[in-house]
Amino acid sequence: MEAAIVTIGDEILIGQITDTNSVWISQQLTSMGVHIYEMVSISDTGEHITGTLDRLIGKVDLVLMTGGLGPTKDDLTKEVLAQYFGANLVVNKEVLATIEEFFEKRGRTMIESNRRQALVPDNCRVLPNNHGTAPGMWFTRERTHIVSMPGVPYEMKPMLLEQLLPAMTDQMGIPALEHKTIMTHGVPESYLAEMIGDWEDGLPDCMKLAYLPRPGIVRLRLTATGLCTEKADQLLAEEIGALLKIIPEHIFGFDDIFLEEAIGKLLISKGLTLSTAESCTGGNIARLITSVPGSSSYFKGSIIAYSNEVKTENLDIGGAMIEKHGAVSREVVEAMVRGAIGKFRTDTAVATSGIAGPDGGTPDKPVGMVWIAVAWGDRVYSREFRFGGHRELIIEQASMMAIGLLRKMIAGVLAGEKN
Amino acid sequence: MEAAIVTIGDEILIGQITDTNSVWISQQLTSMGVHIYEMVSISDTGEHITGTLDRLIGKVDLVLMTGGLGPTKDDLTKEVLAQYFGANLVVNKEVLATIEEFFEKRGRTMIESNRRQALVPDNCRVLPNNHGTAPGMWFTRERTHIVSMPGVPYEMKPMLLEQLLPAMTDQMGIPALEHKTIMTHGVPESYLAEMIGDWEDGLPDCMKLAYLPRPGIVRLRLTATGLCTEKADQLLAEEIGALLKIIPEHIFGFDDIFLEEAIGKLLISKGLTLSTAESCTGGNIARLITSVPGSSSYFKGSIIAYSNEVKTENLDIGGAMIEKHGAVSREVVEAMVRGAIGKFRTDTAVATSGIAGPDGGTPDKPVGMVWIAVAWGDRVYSREFRFGGHRELIIEQASMMAIGLLRKMIAGVLAGEKN
Repeated sequence: MEAAIVTIGDEILIGQITDTNSVWISQQLTSMGVHIYEMVSISDTGEHITGTLDRLIGKVDLVLMTGGLGPTKDDLTKEVLAQYFGANLVVNKEVLATIEEFFEKRGRTMIESNRRQALVPDNCRVLPNNHGTAPGMWFTRERTHIVSMPGVPYEMKPMLLEQLLPAMTDQMGIPALEHKTIMTHGVPESYLAEMIGDWEDGLPDCMKLAYLPRPGIVRLRLTATGLCTEKADQLLAEEIGALLKIIPEHIFGFDDIFLEEAIGKLLISKGLTLSTAESCTGGNIARLITSVPGSSSYFKGSIIAYSNEVKTENLDIGGAMIEKHGAVSREVVEAMVRGAIGKFRTDTAVATSGIAGPDGGTPDKPVGMVWIAVAWGDRVYSREFRFGGHRELIIEQASMMAIGLLRKMIAGVLAGEKN
Repeated sequence: MEAAIVTIGDEILIGQITDTNSVWISQQLTSMGVHIYEMVSISDTGEHITGTLDRLIGKVDLVLMTGGLGPTKDDLTKEVLAQYFGANLVVNKEVLATIEEFFEKRGRTMIESNRRQALVPDNCRVLPNNHGTAPGMWFTRERTHIVSMPGVPYEMKPMLLEQLLPAMTDQMGIPALEHKTIMTHGVPESYLAEMIGDWEDGLPDCMKLAYLPRPGIVRLRLTATGLCTEKADQLLAEEIGALLKIIPEHIFGFDDIFLEEAIGKLLISKGLTLSTAESCTGGNIARLITSVPGSSSYFKGSIIAYSNEVKTENLDIGGAMIEKHGAVSREVVEAMVRGAIGKFRTDTAVATSGIAGPDGGTPDKPVGMVWIAVAWGDRVYSREFRFGGHRELIIEQASMMAIGLLRKMIAGVLAGEKN
């Protein structure tokens, strides 16, 4: 089954608000196995609305429209739909009663434009609005269902969940579709594609893989279509089992878990505590770690040592060491990570020292060069990286890499790491 | 001039990511006076891409496409465009050189799929990608310009701002329209609207004001249309001059300067240094401060004291004080800010202690309660706040408020602050 989502309203087109309705609707439909053919935002004009319907009717099974149903003059959608489907607008008594009750409850006076909201096309199924005044409308033409709903999220969402979806599963046959998202860290998209290329090529026809990169992270979305849930789950589990044998060390979790959540779970499961000593990441690692609810149970604190004197005074790093090797060096970053463990008395720690740019680079130590160290008790692992992009991206990649390396160390899969 | 924005990729259609590119592009184009006809998200298939182009070419002046240009097998856009525009794919030497340099800088080996990204249609204008490997492509057919750009925001945005928009203003006639954005901090949108309501009502007809809120910040975009640049600039300057008399203390800058940049400039101009002592903000203030290039000239370091023992041991806060008043209290946050100044020997400091949630709240000290202190030498100012929203939003608002209060203290406009 295929659906299109149509959003009506100028405030989206001019970039004043982000269309969060479409994402939410898409998530609901996708999880039911409905394939989203297209999402489109159009203006509230007769020509654009009817042109879009002409294009989509017969092409998809379901057109879900939101917006354009308000009481003001610039909301034309209902009139346009009535004309398009050859309907007359008639007062719907139940809708009128709902609107009257809505105003009575709030002690407000109804005006003519509110009363007009009780007018509905005489050939559609009406979906009552339990949280506002504009009802939903459900038309059918050829093989396509066309549903128009209000654009206000707290009116649209219950209408879709409580009324439309149950009616849909009754009326339309909906095929099964299952996904699983595999979260990887530490390998860029193109390398990953090469590492798992044979596995990907060997997937059965009913399965599809998508690469979804973020800084430092690649999400792999594996989809099985046209199978019963049981069979789909079984196939997904088999293929993921095979993938886990190919890149065990790079997979840190499933289904959109964040790396900072994954490390939190790992630390809790092992009863370990964490601290950080950050130079070029400037507190970003601590911020990521503490963005996770409950992180206070394993995260103790950080020292952000932006100046060399802070490194010397707070992390017991001899000034001579900095002078000899430079602040961006294996020696200093390892001393920093040991300093954090000592200072905060934690089981584990991460440390960074690098050049985030745009200034401060030299031929030997260019912008993007970052030393990262991770430690668990007496064990220390450190490595030099060269990250690309602008300052923000270098900080983000270094932060993710530091957390990722600590995860590998604790999970016992760091051995294969090249040093 | 009319434009359509086309986003390519399944991850948007299945609701896994929100399409933030379209909103951002729309804001850029709208502010130049370009009318957005439609925003549409489609799948990366030949049929859907060519069908969408068939529909939009001749209808709008500009089609801006993002996405579908990655190195992996599911990214078909370039091949589809080449075929659609009857082009051969040829190696572009400059693009190849950029890609080779990109890999060399990172010390990584290029593989075949990376090399393929240097192939471009032989009848398009190539837009170099200075932050990634996939170049942009600019085709023309009938009256329509068709531009394909990468979907990764930090690659697409500079390509649009630095290359496409300047070329567009040259090639296509774009009407006069001038803006100035006024950055305010510390007053919620609805209060601000009341404070400046009379001024807004008195604006001449050719000027329009838009409120653009972000956590902790409200941007005021003032637009003058249909005037020559000189006259527009003059009118904008006059109206902003009037606004500065109404809310002098809340305006921290212009034209999308970030609060963390504004404080950086202020610190540099006064020759002052800064440190932070953070509890509930978990390093986010330090991260914001150090996100600014050149911040190492005034930012010395931070202590993130997530546990009480870290506060006691590192910031000279007596355990008795924490026991008596609780960690979230005026006494402790003022001791923290003094501790930071002493420890890092800086001229100024900020400190936070609060409950970011979702757990840990009590009736007396609920989730969202945050004590913030700012200090300059011996002067200390502190205040309790109650922020709303989820954990991330509480941390963000507290961080912005801390930086904003320090700005007011240094700028000498803190006096009017209610305590």
